[in-house]
Formats: sequence, structure tokens, C-alpha cells
Amino acid sequence: MNKRKNAFYAQSGGVTAVINASAAGLIETARSKPEKIGKIYAGRNGIIGALTEDLIDTSKESAAAIRKLRHTPAGAFGSCRYKLKSIEENRKQYERLIEVFAAHDIGYFFYNGGGDSADTCLKVSQLSKKMKYPIQAIHIPKTVDNDLPITDNCPGFGSVAKYIATSTREASFDVASMAKTSTKVFILEVMGRHAGWIAAAGAMASDAATEIPIIVLFPEVPFNRKNFMAEVKRKVSEFGYVSVVVSEGAKGKDGKFLSDQGLVDAFGHAQLGGVAPVVANMIKQDLGYKYHWAVADYLQRAARHIASKTDVEQAYALGKAAVQLALKGENAIMPTIVRTSNSLYRWKIGTTKLNRVANVEKMMPKNFITKDGFGITPKCREYLGPLMKGEDYPPFKNGLPDYVRLKNISVKKRVNTEFKL
Amino acid sequence: MNKRKNAFYAQSGGVTAVINASAAGLIETARSKPEKIGKIYAGRNGIIGALTEDLIDTSKESAAAIRKLRHTPAGAFGSCRYKLKSIEENRKQYERLIEVFAAHDIGYFFYNGGGDSADTCLKVSQLSKKMKYPIQAIHIPKTVDNDLPITDNCPGFGSVAKYIATSTREASFDVASMAKTSTKVFILEVMGRHAGWIAAAGAMASDAATEIPIIVLFPEVPFNRKNFMAEVKRKVSEFGYVSVVVSEGAKGKDGKFLSDQGLVDAFGHAQLGGVAPVVANMIKQDLGYKYHWAVADYLQRAARHIASKTDVEQAYALGKAAVQLALKGENAIMPTIVRTSNSLYRWKIGTTKLNRVANVEKMMPKNFITKDGFGITPKCREYLGPLMKGEDYPPFKNGLPDYVRLKNISVKKRVNTEFKL
Repeated sequence: MNKRKNAFYAQSGGVTAVINASAAGLIETARSKPEKIGKIYAGRNGIIGALTEDLIDTSKESAAAIRKLRHTPAGAFGSCRYKLKSIEENRKQYERLIEVFAAHDIGYFFYNGGGDSADTCLKVSQLSKKMKYPIQAIHIPKTVDNDLPITDNCPGFGSVAKYIATSTREASFDVASMAKTSTKVFILEVMGRHAGWIAAAGAMASDAATEIPIIVLFPEVPFNRKNFMAEVKRKVSEFGYVSVVVSEGAKGKDGKFLSDQGLVDAFGHAQLGGVAPVVANMIKQDLGYKYHWAVADYLQRAARHIASKTDVEQAYALGKAAVQLALKGENAIMPTIVRTSNSLYRWKIGTTKLNRVANVEKMMPKNFITKDGFGITPKCREYLGPLMKGEDYPPFKNGLPDYVRLKNISVKKRVNTEFKL
Repeated sequence: MNKRKNAFYAQSGGVTAVINASAAGLIETARSKPEKIGKIYAGRNGIIGALTEDLIDTSKESAAAIRKLRHTPAGAFGSCRYKLKSIEENRKQYERLIEVFAAHDIGYFFYNGGGDSADTCLKVSQLSKKMKYPIQAIHIPKTVDNDLPITDNCPGFGSVAKYIATSTREASFDVASMAKTSTKVFILEVMGRHAGWIAAAGAMASDAATEIPIIVLFPEVPFNRKNFMAEVKRKVSEFGYVSVVVSEGAKGKDGKFLSDQGLVDAFGHAQLGGVAPVVANMIKQDLGYKYHWAVADYLQRAARHIASKTDVEQAYALGKAAVQLALKGENAIMPTIVRTSNSLYRWKIGTTKLNRVANVEKMMPKNFITKDGFGITPKCREYLGPLMKGEDYPPFKNGLPDYVRLKNISVKKRVNTEFKL
């Protein structure tokens, strides 16, 4: 790998508060090795940018702009939800990738995403062996869901955890103030898909110094309405109020999402709602308590203003590590976070082969959830605590966070043929 | 007013991120005048604390604890939604108040709330004349809705405005990243009751340096589905995505809340949902765009972690001013915020008679809303800008904001008879 090659970088899947910090780590590190890495081209909207030859020339961005990526949420180059088929199923896609990569002298492929994206990255890594195009594919982990295996945690998650724990604490203080004559139950719906990591972070709002009655509804624990109502009643009786943190992925025993209640409007049209109002309505029916509910949705994963310092540092370090791995000649690999000490939290960068990551989901382990299924264990607290630690505020201007928007100047097309997605 | 008297302070209505800052300003100032003001008793859960003789002795709290109120959201003494009837309608309530106040030598009544609370405070101020009990009633403004008249703005609002503008900017960066292959419309539901002030703050997410396509649905502008859809379509065509900020109070031409869509579940039970999913479903039906929606609910008004510095300072100053007005012998009065300069924002404390405030709602003026009804004018920006300005982060501990909980030790009862609310 002594020949200088250009690099391709793209962001994939749902974006986070710190995926751009990984981009900053990657671009700044690559820029420091001009003898090895030429231009860094970013795919406009993920892998689609490669397939359609819609490349962004990041060399047109100033050092200051790239530095600002570290504190800017969402995906600066655009992301996509688009999964490659296998080489056997759709050889054309891969021929196209090779055509575009070859035209732009791309030898490094950096893909920044979650489980689906790891799968895409793995497939690209096979171009060398299966299709004789020399490329090194490195995956940079990113997912607020924290559901990637091997790595101790995923960049993006720590900041969502901090946001959800902070918001749950703040809203709980609010409902506690109102409970005597008004709202007694507050319900917060959080992301996380099939894994309860983000929901678990809600329980962190309560600690020894600031006890708060919180019930968590995990996707990993089948919802039992009777048990849940008994717990709500018990907590309201004891504390006067309760906060419920419910995962969007919460399911009944039948495996059906709680949010899927077959709601119809006055004209009989099916209505898509969240799980928070569903739980709220159940509480009203069964117990009659006054409630409020919130759905954090994008607010949680875009909340760079309350990002975790640990998370930002790890996101940056993984972007940097990806370049270092590429320069070592690695392929089909992903840098990971390895926790080396728990008492005084310490971490380092490790690696894993991509085939161990692609399409594997890491759920909450059983010993992280309390026996009643509604809370987290001390072991879980020990795991989550350091990930939320430290503040890393963005600069503010006129009362608002000052986030960067890149120029995103297109690379001149060289293939210049259309490709149908 | 040379005789030393005790004071009663209570928090009323929906709480905010900075109502405790007013409490801190009031208590610290009162403590500095021990020759005039004896003990400061707080009502547990607002006026209910007075009626049920459930008083908190704030003198049991350390100076450090009171100082921490400045950065702690929600109502430290509990709030209530409870409106007194007029003296003519329910004389018993007032006789009870006099009984409790007399027993505890209370000569100052400080009430911290919105329009309904101003009405309660006004009624208490009439005890002197109508029932010969010497009391001075001072109202301290507080409402995230910003709908009180006379005062330039209300404490609580600036911080919500900052939270909503920041969150809208962050979520808009998120949807912009995803729009190519996924979500094209993001809908955020905000508070504000009948007034569009908070919704207007959403539009502040976009400015000259960071343009963002935003559509605001104000309660002041009757919803027109056809016009709205045309605007959504136009913005998505031009920018690829759009963010919609919808007020919980948005109404149709018939005056019916948009959120009131007669939803029923599979069993025919009426379901109470927010307006965000209603707007989302309309967009899906009419335009077929993929959407995400969020309901900020309590998160927005409890978000002390992203409070506006201006807001915190004003909340504190109004609590302080209330004591100063009391010591000047004033009654039936409310300190206000007066804007003295716009170009370089400056403000001072003014006053108004309570009868000019009680039960009056201040809506968005017509010249604050653009002609098409979907945005804000430069005049509105000029008004909102300074209110959101400055950061005032709370201290963090273990990754979470370190908010104080007071001891809230009860005052020994002296009347000791039950009072039925």
C-alpha cells in the first residue's frame, strides 16, 4: 500500500449527534497523510453517492469547517437508507461501484453506520477477492441504538443516553410539581428499535442523590398490562407521581408492537401513532390518572447541544482509527471501543472483523434488567454511567448553536453515465 | 409597614425552567431584610398550601440550597391548578385564608404564576379592603406561553423559545441528512395554548446564516389544509425537506382543535392524541411523503439545561423586585419586564396594576406573522431574539444536571382544622 490512493467516505442510516465528529477525525487524520491518501471524496447521501457518481470533494472545505464538524449534529454529507444486495444477487451494483472507484482512483472505502451499513461495507470489502478490484473497506461504527456487537458501545448512543436521562430528570421534576392537583404520570417515548439501551438510559435519571420513580418498558420484556398498571399504581401511591420511559420497540406477548393499535380516524383511515399515547390511554382507562406524554423522536438523536463528552471523543477517535487501519493495509475491519477499566473509566480502540458485526443485533443482557422487568440493575448503571459523562457544548451565536454547513462541492464526473438505483 | 411580618410565597399553574430562579430572587432578597420580613413560608402546592395550612418553612433551607434554586427547573415547593372563586361567590375560602395568614402572622402574599394566578392574587389583594385583613399581594409573572399583557415578556418563555429553536434547528439538520431516501417532513408539536409565541420560536431555528425551510402552524391562523399542503410541497420541492412546527392550540376554521380528530381504537374507545400525528397523517394522505414527528411536551418547559441566560436573569430580578415592591407598601401589583432598547437589547423592571393583567391573554400581533400565515416577520425576530440569548448551564454531576431538592420542612400547624378544597 505504498501507492497514493484517494479515499471514499460516506454516512449511512439514521444520523446522530456525533457522526460528524467521526467524519472530522477521519478527514483531519487523512489530511495529515498526504503522501498516502490523496483526496477524500464523500458520497452525497451515503452509498448512493458512489452508485450515482455523486461525489463531494472534501478538499474544498477549510480546516476550520472540518473542525466545526466535531460539534455539528446530523450527517454533513447526507445519509441514506439503502442496502446493497450480495454480489451474487446483483453483480451490476458492484460493477458500477468499481467503475466509479476506478475512475476516481479510490482505494479506500470508509463507511460510517450501523448494522445494515456494516453489511454493505463487508460486501464492498469483497470486491478485492471476488472482482479483483483492489480496495480496503473499513467500517466506522455509529448507531444511537447501541445494538452493534463486539464494540463496548457505539458512538451516538452516549449522547442520546445523556439527553434522555437529562430530559427524564427534568420532566420528572416538572410532573412532581404538578402531581397534587394535575398530572400524575409522565410518559416519554424513546428510540432504540429492538434494543432497550436508550430506554435504559431513562432510568439513569434517578440515582442515589436524586431518587425518581421511573418505570421502563423495554423491547426485551413482553408488555404485561396488569403488572404494569400495578407498578404505576404502586409508584403513584408511594411518590405521588411516576415517569414512564417506553421504547418505540415495546411489544406485547404476541410480538406485536404496542404502538400498533389499529387506530382509525373519523373516516376510518388507519392512523399511525406513537407508543406513548397508547400507553397514556391505557393508564387513563385502567387507573384514571391525569397524564402527559412526549415523543422525543429526532430531537433525541440530533441533540448535539447536550452531547456526551465521552461520546464525542470516541466518535472522533474511531474516525481517526479508521484511517490508521487503512494505512496499515487492513480490509473488512471495524475499529471498536474497548473498555479497559470500569472503576475509573478507561477505554481504548480495538478492532473486529466485519463479518462478526454485520447484521448482528446486541440486545440488553438479562442481568442489566431488574427482575420485575421495569428497571435497570447496578451492573447496567455501571455500564451506562461513563458513556454519558462530560459536557461538550457547541459554540452559540445569537442564542442558537452555531453548526457548520459544508460547501459540499461536487467532484467533476468522469464516468458520466446514469445508474438506476 | 414598619412592623415586621412574615411572608407567604407560592408557585402556581404549569411550572417552568426558571420559576425557581424567581423563588431564589425573592427568598434571597427577603432574607437580606430581616428587620422587615420575618419568615418566608412557601405554600406546599400553591394556594392549596395556604388553604390547608400546609406551609413550608424556607428558613430551614441553607443559603447554598436557595442559590441552587436558580439553576433548578420545575416548582421546588409544588404547584397547583386551582382557581379561587370571587369573595362574593365563596366567602369561606377567604375567611380560611385570613385564618391561616393571621395564625402565622403573614402580611405579604407573593404569588408566582400566569393569567389565572394573577386573578387569584388580585382576589387575595382585596382582603385588605373587603375583609379588613391587612395584606399586600404581589404577583410575579411566570408562563412559558408568554401570553400575559403589559409585561414585554414572561419568565419561562425565553428558555422554552431557546429550547424549541435549538431543537428545531437540530432536528432539521437531521431530516435534511435523511431526505434523499427517507424522511422528508419533520413535525414538532409545541405548547403555548391559544397563543403562538412558542411556535414562533420554532421559526427562529432558521436565520440568514443557517437557512432552514420551516412552516409554522399558529393558533392565531385558522388551518387551511389546501394552502398548508401546497406550502409543504413547495418547500420539499425546493429544499428536499421541510420542518413543521405546530402549536398544540392550532385550530380549523370551525374553531375546533386540529388535535381533536375523534380517533378511536380497535374497541371504539376515544383516543386522545397530539396534533403532531394528526398533521403527519394528513401529509401522508395528501402528499405521501415519509415523515417523523415529535411532541416536546414537558421536555420543553423543564429544559433547564438549555435555559436562556436573559430568561434566568429576568426571572431572578422579578422575584427580587416583588420583595422590593412589598417593602414600598405596594398591593395588587405585578413587576414587569420593560424593554428599553432593541438594537442593543436592554431591559428594566416596571410595574403594572394587577387588574390590568388578570385573565387577559396576549396573542401574537398580526404584524409578527407573515402574510401567508406560515412564518414570522423581521419585527417578530427582533422581539424574540434577545429573549433566547445567552447560555446559563446548570452544574453537571456524573453526566447529569445537578438539581436541588429542598428539605421542604412543614411549619407547625396553628389553626389545625381541616379545610375541604
